[in-house]
Amino acid sequence: MKILIIGATGTIGQAIRAKMQDQHELILASKNNSEHQVDITSSKSIKALFDRVGKLDAIVSVTGNLHFGPISEMNAEQFRMGLNDKLLGQVDITLIGQHYLNLGGSITLTSGIVSDEPILGGANATTVNAAIDGFVKAAAIELKNNIRINSVNPTMVEESREIYGPFFPGYEAVPVAEVANAFVRSIEGPQTGRVYRVW
Amino acid sequence: MKILIIGATGTIGQAIRAKMQDQHELILASKNNSEHQVDITSSKSIKALFDRVGKLDAIVSVTGNLHFGPISEMNAEQFRMGLNDKLLGQVDITLIGQHYLNLGGSITLTSGIVSDEPILGGANATTVNAAIDGFVKAAAIELKNNIRINSVNPTMVEESREIYGPFFPGYEAVPVAEVANAFVRSIEGPQTGRVYRVW
Ligand SMILES: NC(=O)c1ccc[n+]([C@@H]2O[C@H](COP(=O)([O-])OP(=O)(O)OC[C@H]3O[C@@H](n4cnc5c(N)ncnc54)[C@H](OP(=O)(O)O)[C@@H]3O)[C@@H](O)[C@H]2O)c1
Ligand SMILES: NC(=O)c1ccc[n+]([C@@H]2O[C@H](COP(=O)([O-])OP(=O)(O)OC[C@H]3O[C@@H](n4cnc5c(N)ncnc54)[C@H](OP(=O)(O)O)[C@@H]3O)[C@@H](O)[C@H]2O)c1
Repeated sequence: MKILIIGATGTIGQAIRAKMQDQHELILASKNNSEHQVDITSSKSIKALFDRVGKLDAIVSVTGNLHFGPISEMNAEQFRMGLNDKLLGQVDITLIGQHYLNLGGSITLTSGIVSDEPILGGANATTVNAAIDGFVKAAAIELKNNIRINSVNPTMVEESREIYGPFFPGYEAVPVAEVANAFVRSIEGPQTGRVYRVW
Repeated sequence: MKILIIGATGTIGQAIRAKMQDQHELILASKNNSEHQVDITSSKSIKALFDRVGKLDAIVSVTGNLHFGPISEMNAEQFRMGLNDKLLGQVDITLIGQHYLNLGGSITLTSGIVSDEPILGGANATTVNAAIDGFVKAAAIELKNNIRINSVNPTMVEESREIYGPFFPGYEAVPVAEVANAFVRSIEGPQTGRVYRVW
């Protein structure tokens, strides 16, 4: 399969590459450090990426920024940042990318455990992650050409514990290779409208 | 209690008024047809409303517009409309309104059954409604002064069947008074971070 990975240089993106590069043709994209550069907050940039790489069998989005901070001090502009980035960015990858997929292709987006397990400072993150898991269920009933769409919803990965550990007291972390496996299930498996929880 | 209802002229808003006006002081707000006018897509307008009405015991948001249309033709700008309106509008009512609530006050937002039951043309609606139900769970763990927050998630109401019926084949509708009761449970009851499903 010809697979586009947006967020290919990230902790999880790299693990997906390690797991899939022997069997598939991977096209690597991200904001700065990949062969193909793209900014998911810009429709123009996403469209240019798809025009450049051509028809695909699978699209993986494993990226997106959120706003973190106490709700008592949060304002709409900060909240909008997360909506426009991790949520609308991944939705837009879907809206544009659906037209570049071969018959039976797939789209896999990334949410995260705070969708269901709120943390302090994470109101924007919970909202966005719950929204992404909702979006894939709705998109799945409409996509044409047997195109499938799922999300992978990871808990904190062990390799990111230094960054995220303090925000997840008592949470089990999973090896990033396990999260990468959920992407393989989504891409090579038959299901659609699924949220693959890795927790 | 002194209760602000934003969306007071709507089908559900009117039913909440009918159920609560004898026991409470209701302050009615909506875009055009209420004593207090407000546009929930504008932080400035929301702030002006709260400054005008002063300290409250409960805030009810029962409004919000969405984008409906086939995903095969949808673009980011259309999707953003629903995010900025029903989702960010209600989030912003919370972010601003929290500072105008008395000790033990409450905020009740409105989502809808497509959060969990996608319909054709409803990708934006599923996303937004799932996001709202997520948001209240996250906000609930952070709000100060014993302020509570819940959402009411109604199925189609009987009084709206003429408008929405064609999009909900085989769905049971509920009398709008039942939906209004869920708002009473949220406002007068003790729970927080709850999604009151009326379906
Ligand atoms: N790590 C975890 O424990 C964890 C747990 C749950 C969920 N998640 C979610 O999984 C996803 C990936 O996380 P990660 O930890 O692997 O990320 P990461 O290591 O921080 O890497 C971020 C990746 O996103 C790219 N990127 C950033 N902004 C972008 C933009 N505007 N447009 C396109 N690409 C952009 C970066 O590109 P460059 O390198 O080129 O700048 C990089 O490839 C995120 O959505 C995160 O919320 C992570
Ligand atoms: N009706 C149903 O079957 C049903 C089912 C599930 C969920 N819901 C949800 O319940 C909520 C209310 O639905 P409804 O059917 O009662 O609505 P509705 O009858 O269409 O009334 C809409 C209300 O929202 C106000 N409004 C519209 N745009 C506004 C804005 N930008 N700022 C402030 N107020 C605005 C209107 O004010 P003016 O009259 O002053 O213009 C009116 O009070 C919506 O979120 C809807 O998605 C409804």
